[in-house]
Amino acid sequence: MSNWETISSKIVYKNPWMTVYEDGVIRPDGQKGIYSFVETPPSVYVIPLDKVNNTYLIQLFRYTTKKLSWEVPGGRSDGLSLPEAAVKELEEETGLVSKDVVEIGQFENLNGISTEISHVFLAKNVEQAGNSQSAEEGITQIKKLPFESALAMIYKGEITDGQSINALFYAALALGYAFIR
Amino acid sequence: MSNWETISSKIVYKNPWMTVYEDGVIRPDGQKGIYSFVETPPSVYVIPLDKVNNTYLIQLFRYTTKKLSWEVPGGRSDGLSLPEAAVKELEEETGLVSKDVVEIGQFENLNGISTEISHVFLAKNVEQAGNSQSAEEGITQIKKLPFESALAMIYKGEITDGQSINALFYAALALGYAFIR
Repeated sequence: MSNWETISSKIVYKNPWMTVYEDGVIRPDGQKGIYSFVETPPSVYVIPLDKVNNTYLIQLFRYTTKKLSWEVPGGRSDGLSLPEAAVKELEEETGLVSKDVVEIGQFENLNGISTEISHVFLAKNVEQAGNSQSAEEGITQIKKLPFESALAMIYKGEITDGQSINALFYAALALGYAFIR
Repeated sequence: MSNWETISSKIVYKNPWMTVYEDGVIRPDGQKGIYSFVETPPSVYVIPLDKVNNTYLIQLFRYTTKKLSWEVPGGRSDGLSLPEAAVKELEEETGLVSKDVVEIGQFENLNGISTEISHVFLAKNVEQAGNSQSAEEGITQIKKLPFESALAMIYKGEITDGQSINALFYAALALGYAFIR
């Protein structure tokens, strides 16, 4: 199936959050070369929904892109099971708890250079437990809004984080939406 | 606006396609630490459309995730202007040419560790020019299908590349679709 051949592999950088590999390869065109990529654990994204179909977005400053970004709650799985990580990230970032958290899809991120797989969860009937650690997490604002208003924020270019767009797309499908014109 | 402070910055890995930085930082919680990230140039994604609303997907083996992936045409801008890169990637990967290529949106990719911004283009009235270099590019299949069938491939979990999902979402919006249930 693969049209790439690996002839060597070495770690060129590692910290507690990522490992960078440089592999020696034979490319699909038959030429020798290198292929470098970043290994990170699976990540989770959670779309919270309360009893009347409000969802919650978080705003944080992204160090990489130097901008404030509206996003869905989420983060690294860090050795937890994926549903456990989803529950933990949701509560840490928003203070919300739910007894009805289910995985609704998965997608690859930046698969030219990254191994990361993101798993998307829908958390229904969320309630505020009040113990958010949002400030420590770097979160500058939390917004409660109707789910359809979150979709509208994508339409208007107000959400531009690719993973949040993917996660909201999957949530829309899980809630019975389809693209119609 | 930023709640992060940079106190040092060094390059820990570099190749022709990416640069990895390790910055010394003061985190939003006031603690000293490091923040490492990967710098790559902007990327482009192109949704081709012919006169009767067919689009084209490419299939390639992704070295990072070790799987075959259906994706929209696209790639690195590599110093070209973004519209030039879009035209070049589309022709190289599919042999398609268009005189009507417009940017319809942009999004961030994996913004926890990557600086990459993806720019999405719609290429209307595409025609086959016949000089695709798809084999050299590692492309294993090219599929022509109605635009709505490409959306259905997301619904069915047959397209799981996050960037392709984002690009098709933006194309759907540009073509007048909205999520309805």
